[in-house]
Amino acid sequence: MTHEIAVIPGDGIGQEVTPAAVEVLETLDIDFEFIEAEAGDAVKEETGEALPQETYDLAASADATLFGAAGETAADVILPLREAVDSFVNVRPAKAYPGIDAVRPETDLVFLRENTEGVYSGHEDRLTDDVSTLTRVVTESASERLAEFACDYVANSDKHDSFTIVHKANVMRETDGLFRDTVKSVADEQGVDTDEVLMDAFATRVCLDPDQFDVVVCPNLAGDVLSDLAAGLVGGLGLLPSANIGPERALFEPVHGTAPDIAGESVANPAAKIISAAMMLEYLGYEEESEAVNAAVEATLAEGPRTPDLGGDASTEDVTAAVIDRL
Amino acid sequence: MTHEIAVIPGDGIGQEVTPAAVEVLETLDIDFEFIEAEAGDAVKEETGEALPQETYDLAASADATLFGAAGETAADVILPLREAVDSFVNVRPAKAYPGIDAVRPETDLVFLRENTEGVYSGHEDRLTDDVSTLTRVVTESASERLAEFACDYVANSDKHDSFTIVHKANVMRETDGLFRDTVKSVADEQGVDTDEVLMDAFATRVCLDPDQFDVVVCPNLAGDVLSDLAAGLVGGLGLLPSANIGPERALFEPVHGTAPDIAGESVANPAAKIISAAMMLEYLGYEEESEAVNAAVEATLAEGPRTPDLGGDASTEDVTAAVIDRL
Ligand SMILES: CC(C)[C@H](C(=O)O)[C@@H](O)C(=O)O
Ligand SMILES: CC(C)[C@H](C(=O)O)[C@@H](O)C(=O)O
Repeated sequence: MTHEIAVIPGDGIGQEVTPAAVEVLETLDIDFEFIEAEAGDAVKEETGEALPQETYDLAASADATLFGAAGETAADVILPLREAVDSFVNVRPAKAYPGIDAVRPETDLVFLRENTEGVYSGHEDRLTDDVSTLTRVVTESASERLAEFACDYVANSDKHDSFTIVHKANVMRETDGLFRDTVKSVADEQGVDTDEVLMDAFATRVCLDPDQFDVVVCPNLAGDVLSDLAAGLVGGLGLLPSANIGPERALFEPVHGTAPDIAGESVANPAAKIISAAMMLEYLGYEEESEAVNAAVEATLAEGPRTPDLGGDASTEDVTAAVIDRL
Repeated sequence: MTHEIAVIPGDGIGQEVTPAAVEVLETLDIDFEFIEAEAGDAVKEETGEALPQETYDLAASADATLFGAAGETAADVILPLREAVDSFVNVRPAKAYPGIDAVRPETDLVFLRENTEGVYSGHEDRLTDDVSTLTRVVTESASERLAEFACDYVANSDKHDSFTIVHKANVMRETDGLFRDTVKSVADEQGVDTDEVLMDAFATRVCLDPDQFDVVVCPNLAGDVLSDLAAGLVGGLGLLPSANIGPERALFEPVHGTAPDIAGESVANPAAKIISAAMMLEYLGYEEESEAVNAAVEATLAEGPRTPDLGGDASTEDVTAAVIDRL
């Protein structure tokens, strides 16, 4: 069976780390067909459009998409691409890796972020000169779909057996109340333990003691901000992967951006993109290969070679070759 | 001139730390008239109302209010009380104190949080069984008022000379765009330097290096979450004060809650509430007295006596007496 994989490197170091991940995948005994497409600042400059229709269509039809990063146009690229794969959940693991200086090295969290609504629904109006509004949408159906995913996630894992619902239902009573109640009732039905924490209290408590949390289920903006907070605790966005999962396809992206300061110099660390590719392998059912790639990246982070962000002087290619060697 | 001060201890340790702050204020050579009123879980249990009308009216007419904490009913108490004093800005300093174990002891930030709108405007609807909405409101006038306060704040300070605007205008383009543009244009007119950071990026960066930030101006929910994040970096909510400032009156509250686990045992640390009272002194124009109280609290934190949360075995009264001794 051939897997059609859309490859969208985007801007900056996306152009360097995405090919590195493809190179790693090509060494595996799996039948991938990689199809490349453009998105981001550079293509906008050329064509006026950050996300060409053919790129959107490709992501909407491929089995999975590997995305790199986009610059100024990030929101115009990634939000429609999440929609293209009908992604209802953004899976964001945040754990410290060897070789990375972390404020809280014991952090080991997975955020399951609602990926379709909340303030991201994007209905905004300028009612008068003075007044602007945004309609934040929370639906029972999206909350349910997320909760079912979260329950499966926990059930299929040896590591996790419950999750924390993070929300702000003391202020957003109807909307986050619906979110919280729906997620909780799905979990109750499925016999999955949950607890709940207000999003502001979560922000304090995760700094004080990240060990008290494990899997976090939350609305869209809360997931955006709190997973980036967790990234800060593990030493930065540098090594974090993420998966945008839909019912039939998915998109995998490193959490880091385009890193314009080092782009084009072949020194970008490909680890986050390669770990994102490992998430794709798992998604496609190649558990063993996924674990092998993760192990090869971890060994390379621990033993080198390392790119300059980790104090080494290796190139993107050196690191990629070292990961492949370890497979 | 007599200053009428509303005193609303609320629930839990609010009942212990609020009288401690009043005791400190009473030793000063300032003509205060303290008028106590009820709010919170206990009064709700008795009367069915967490915030009796006379408490609201008192806060709305007093020169300043000292609030303690409220339990389950926190949102029903503090949000209307902020409205009662017409508070348009919540001033939240977050800095590490001697004696507190902090993840990032170099943190020294002040959040100026918009205090009237955003998702807190509270217009929610259940449109169908499936769909709930919340209308997030951002106005030019509220953004302007906040920006003018921020510019004055920076201008009247030896310590600060610029501020960072934190927002999520890449997603909330109209609403946070209006916020960002308005705040920036007021600052530009007044010759105050600003920079801007997306709220998710701020969450990462403040963990990695809090020193890069100083004064942070942001919408309501961003201020709620990010100031609590900063509280996590300085070791918890325990010692943080806050001020809800309106055009004619203001309300001062510690950031901590009711601490039900230790309430009633006379071991609550009164420091945050006494520092909040020092913010009130500054607000009322008693700069010198404010500095003296702050210095007395800091000396007490450093040299003791200390309450059990800081590893000591002193009571609330012991600490209060020690602060008064040092004045
Ligand atoms: C680029 C931006 C629209 C995006 C988001 O807010 O979701 C990013 O911050 C992320 O988390 O992937
Ligand atoms: C109690 C709650 C409504 C309140 C808020 O969200 O503003 C609290 O978290 C705070 O920050 O003072």
